[in-house]
Amino acid sequence: MTAKIAILGASGYTGAELVRYIATHPDMEIAALSGNSKAGMEMAQVFPHLRHLDLPRLTTIEEIDFAGIDLAFCALPHATSQAVIAELPRDLKVVDLSADFRLRDPAAYEKWYGKPHAALELQKEAVYGLTEFYRDDIRAARLVAGTGCNAATGQYALRPLIEAGVIDLDRIVIDLKAAVSGAGRSLKENLLHAELSEGAHGYAVGGIHRHLGEFDQEFSAIAGREVRVQFTPHLIPANRGILATVYVEGEAAAVHAALAERYAEEEFLVVLPEGEHPSVRHVRGSNYCHLGVVADRIPGRAIVIAALDNLAKGSSGQAIQNANLMLGLEEGTGLRLAPLFP
Amino acid sequence: MTAKIAILGASGYTGAELVRYIATHPDMEIAALSGNSKAGMEMAQVFPHLRHLDLPRLTTIEEIDFAGIDLAFCALPHATSQAVIAELPRDLKVVDLSADFRLRDPAAYEKWYGKPHAALELQKEAVYGLTEFYRDDIRAARLVAGTGCNAATGQYALRPLIEAGVIDLDRIVIDLKAAVSGAGRSLKENLLHAELSEGAHGYAVGGIHRHLGEFDQEFSAIAGREVRVQFTPHLIPANRGILATVYVEGEAAAVHAALAERYAEEEFLVVLPEGEHPSVRHVRGSNYCHLGVVADRIPGRAIVIAALDNLAKGSSGQAIQNANLMLGLEEGTGLRLAPLFP
Amino acid sequence: MTAKIAILGASGYTGAELVRYIATHPDMEIAALSGNSKAGMEMAQVFPHLRHLDLPRLTTIEEIDFAGIDLAFCALPHATSQAVIAELPRDLKVVDLSADFRLRDPAAYEKWYGKPHAALELQKEAVYGLTEFYRDDIRAARLVAGTGCNAATGQYALRPLIEAGVIDLDRIVIDLKAAVSGAGRSLKENLLHAELSEGAHGYAVGGIHRHLGEFDQEFSAIAGREVRVQFTPHLIPANRGILATVYVEGEAAAVHAALAERYAEEEFLVVLPEGEHPSVRHVRGSNYCHLGVVADRIPGRAIVIAALDNLAKGSSGQAIQNANLMLGLEEGTGLRLAPLFP
Amino acid sequence: MTAKIAILGASGYTGAELVRYIATHPDMEIAALSGNSKAGMEMAQVFPHLRHLDLPRLTTIEEIDFAGIDLAFCALPHATSQAVIAELPRDLKVVDLSADFRLRDPAAYEKWYGKPHAALELQKEAVYGLTEFYRDDIRAARLVAGTGCNAATGQYALRPLIEAGVIDLDRIVIDLKAAVSGAGRSLKENLLHAELSEGAHGYAVGGIHRHLGEFDQEFSAIAGREVRVQFTPHLIPANRGILATVYVEGEAAAVHAALAERYAEEEFLVVLPEGEHPSVRHVRGSNYCHLGVVADRIPGRAIVIAALDNLAKGSSGQAIQNANLMLGLEEGTGLRLAPLFP
Repeated sequence: MTAKIAILGASGYTGAELVRYIATHPDMEIAALSGNSKAGMEMAQVFPHLRHLDLPRLTTIEEIDFAGIDLAFCALPHATSQAVIAELPRDLKVVDLSADFRLRDPAAYEKWYGKPHAALELQKEAVYGLTEFYRDDIRAARLVAGTGCNAATGQYALRPLIEAGVIDLDRIVIDLKAAVSGAGRSLKENLLHAELSEGAHGYAVGGIHRHLGEFDQEFSAIAGREVRVQFTPHLIPANRGILATVYVEGEAAAVHAALAERYAEEEFLVVLPEGEHPSVRHVRGSNYCHLGVVADRIPGRAIVIAALDNLAKGSSGQAIQNANLMLGLEEGTGLRLAPLFP
Repeated sequence: MTAKIAILGASGYTGAELVRYIATHPDMEIAALSGNSKAGMEMAQVFPHLRHLDLPRLTTIEEIDFAGIDLAFCALPHATSQAVIAELPRDLKVVDLSADFRLRDPAAYEKWYGKPHAALELQKEAVYGLTEFYRDDIRAARLVAGTGCNAATGQYALRPLIEAGVIDLDRIVIDLKAAVSGAGRSLKENLLHAELSEGAHGYAVGGIHRHLGEFDQEFSAIAGREVRVQFTPHLIPANRGILATVYVEGEAAAVHAALAERYAEEEFLVVLPEGEHPSVRHVRGSNYCHLGVVADRIPGRAIVIAALDNLAKGSSGQAIQNANLMLGLEEGTGLRLAPLFP
Repeated sequence: MTAKIAILGASGYTGAELVRYIATHPDMEIAALSGNSKAGMEMAQVFPHLRHLDLPRLTTIEEIDFAGIDLAFCALPHATSQAVIAELPRDLKVVDLSADFRLRDPAAYEKWYGKPHAALELQKEAVYGLTEFYRDDIRAARLVAGTGCNAATGQYALRPLIEAGVIDLDRIVIDLKAAVSGAGRSLKENLLHAELSEGAHGYAVGGIHRHLGEFDQEFSAIAGREVRVQFTPHLIPANRGILATVYVEGEAAAVHAALAERYAEEEFLVVLPEGEHPSVRHVRGSNYCHLGVVADRIPGRAIVIAALDNLAKGSSGQAIQNANLMLGLEEGTGLRLAPLFP
Repeated sequence: MTAKIAILGASGYTGAELVRYIATHPDMEIAALSGNSKAGMEMAQVFPHLRHLDLPRLTTIEEIDFAGIDLAFCALPHATSQAVIAELPRDLKVVDLSADFRLRDPAAYEKWYGKPHAALELQKEAVYGLTEFYRDDIRAARLVAGTGCNAATGQYALRPLIEAGVIDLDRIVIDLKAAVSGAGRSLKENLLHAELSEGAHGYAVGGIHRHLGEFDQEFSAIAGREVRVQFTPHLIPANRGILATVYVEGEAAAVHAALAERYAEEEFLVVLPEGEHPSVRHVRGSNYCHLGVVADRIPGRAIVIAALDNLAKGSSGQAIQNANLMLGLEEGTGLRLAPLFP
């Protein structure tokens, strides 16, 4: 049986990436696409690269008949998402790609997002969408909150180390290099080609990036104590990809072992042999995350490097993976497209 | 039944692209990979983006047992290819991605490639691999010669116009913009990032590019008279994609009609509405070719713009499409991956 | 004596480029900078790369006391420029970088810019700013109209050929590849890094680009008859540079001779030996224009390729060159910075 | 009096960058250029962007008559440099851009460069070329050793902090993002446009990069004890620029004050207001280094970010600055070119 899918907010990059994956997914079919500011348009006008597909026209959310929909992906802006989902049928499965349901603590939400949460009941119900760590909950969930793309990358590098107790929890530095599509299709000066090309710069420097809310929540929960990491993202002149260089205090061999053991059965999390490290160009366009561990010359310190595609494994690929679970499908269905290189 | 595939010359970009497509092709399985200078290595070492796949180790060609192979893709350098194919079993189906069997006239081969052809019997047997125009011959062929990537782009724009007699055959200018992967993984100064990034320049200017041999052969055959086009390729700072801007003398409406009619049933050749024109970013990583026609302000002149991915539709995607036909499979099997954007 | 300079519209790319040149110009000093939407800000906030310079704060135009100003560069948007310049003191020397005063015929202006000109008296006074062809007029001018950057490139390639009568005037095709800074610092979707990087596409295809107004005006004036060229610009993923590939019917030797002779004494117009052709990466950041001529394989046809930096020789460099003449300075003063490569 | 300059190894990127600066330097004149593998060629053939300059032809080093030369820049490969300089006249002023004379301790040299130093007497004589910290020694020196480009960036961020005693010397992490021109014009697969564009990856991960030898030497000397930092460089898809993100334990205010005070009189070292941080795009093509300090959310931790152009301030610009001192010229002569943006 083919699941009928709606994508709310299909006119952004994560929406288009969902369509790309579903286009060759054997068990999903796109039944509705919304894009309020572009309602009435064909997807081919908004995203000519999808021109070859037979897709429904973009509508408003209100125009969608959710009776025939099995699952909705919600790729709307932060804050909008919670208002929209609150109005959806209560039995509709939803994978939300916004930040609205990632933080379980309403106070944390308000701290990082600057206003009170408007759908607290939904927030209680939502399951955090880091598939490999919340798999059973996701399978049973009605509402799954996709993680931040940076937050996913950092967690893949660090969760097994915290679980295994092989690193100093007070000395974690995540230096992250992010490609520009993570900022979405928004018209901002620093996202212009003329500004970014041949450039590179930090942003949200000093521990103010919102994905820190996710790190704090998750790492503290694992450790059973408060954990606060340093996290500095940088924008680099590339379209897709996140490379997180994580500095930890711990033995490289133990760090590597913790990752390798934890991910031994994880199809999409690939741990390289100790001493090797990944490149974003080798995961681009795919749902794979590559992880490497290298010992520093200073004894007792190690460097973990994780690479994934922010739009795929970091966002829409993760969303499909979660949807597969929620729909009772084999988890990796439709997600095994190889990276595009060069 | 799954076809067993060998890829000879798997350590180059077209080889890797074949692997990418076959990785999710339901009816093909990679049984052997050769890469002489890298024999003994794992593909994951040569192409880490393919690390998640369970692939045979690279060997020499001599080490391959062709008894169990249904079809070989030959992605070897020009001139090497003819020597290697001459030694393969005579009943092995072969799709050659080199230039060796594209030109039917031995004199034309010698003129454009600078030495006599060393496998004239094979050349006689080879079918020119522009799928949409040689489909029946390809279905019956043992040896198919993949076209040049630039040659494919130009022909998609022009063949229907010549067939339909709607343009002046003596006034055709093809100005082509090519991304750098078309030059392969070769270590040349002008292919360095520091040289090409923020650059753009013509190459083989003046009608000396070898793909002109294909244009001359094909266009003259269609027209029933000698046709000589102007063709100037340019290298642009991008990895994938060819954009051909073709200047013709003829009515835009007739030009558009000729393309639209000829390609009405062609899944991978997408003709845009008259007045629209394509971008390479909308076909990247896919087997689709987008074509557009715009009338010039000068009456009686039209501009045809064609965009495709040189490694996909221009080379390895085309090769898979041809192999599907040769193996009795549905032509588009495995080739419907959507473009990667952004 | 150091000339006091005002730059109106200093918060755009051409404004910043003027500042870059004047920063090391021995005979110019920046006395006032306007940027209406950013009035009150320091240039270092708008353009941090100019942070090391001691510059006046951005003001509104109204706040500038033009009494002490020798020359104003007007880098304002089209249409705004004519309104502003009409209000400036009548004896102030002005170099306008907008399109407002490029077309001598009011009807042509209205045709290409879509509304009547609002300062016809000024338009009559304005001198077209293609330095090497209007040098004496510019020296005596009060108001000089900077040319379009594409228009400059095409004219450098073609004017000497039309003057010398060595090409067919009815068969001229200009295929132009332009970097993105020519579009200014405007927030448009197609200028985003995620959209343009790895992309390339035509724009204003079909003979509708406004710089055609300049080609028509200038080429017709030289030829003494109406000349209409084909002109198709393309956007490529680079920040600076224009590469114009011009297809002409004429003997390459005669074409090359016409360029070489005409530019023999022109410091900034460099004609390469016949058979060589230029790259934009070799003129980036400089006031130099490189030109090459190659014979096509079809007898009687030639390809002229011209490369320049759209922000420098195509705009702000040209403006400085003209200002030098207007101020009685040596023409190339401050303009001999070498290109930045890589 | 104009100083006569020789550039040995002028066919690489640092050689070309020296020529770019000297082209508009009022007190230097290029008298000789060597490039052994390209001896006999014009610079315009090797670097067409320098075509407008009247330069001597490339020769072998042996062909140069050093009698008339005031100062030689030696831009030769590591190890070659020491052999060549040993053969130069003993009274010739030399600025070496290689790594050969950076490490004062022969054992350190052997450790990091893998073989014994072959010119120990010269090494004793050499002055380390970090201008702002060795100014007086450089003024008096005959032989100055240019610093590593990464080493310069890290030192600009850290030296004043170590001097001022405001950070924990055992907890320093330098995460560095480097553009590709730092690798020179060498033909390596990972420097190809098709490999690097849309990529980003670490290199020399784990504390094995040779510039650590410089950090160890300099920081230990300042601190009066052994200091070992963590240093992980990354290659990003850009041509020019180094962005170093330095994680330190110390109060941000004290860290900022230490930098601001130390560099208050340094023209080329620009400290941003506390809380701001730089981008490589704002120093490209210039001799300026921008530095910023931001407090982390974790009390007692700060992030210092430094940006410079590896070919300019990181190498050839630094070399010119040192040469100015050695020749008795004003230190910043010829180096005040503004950055190229966009």
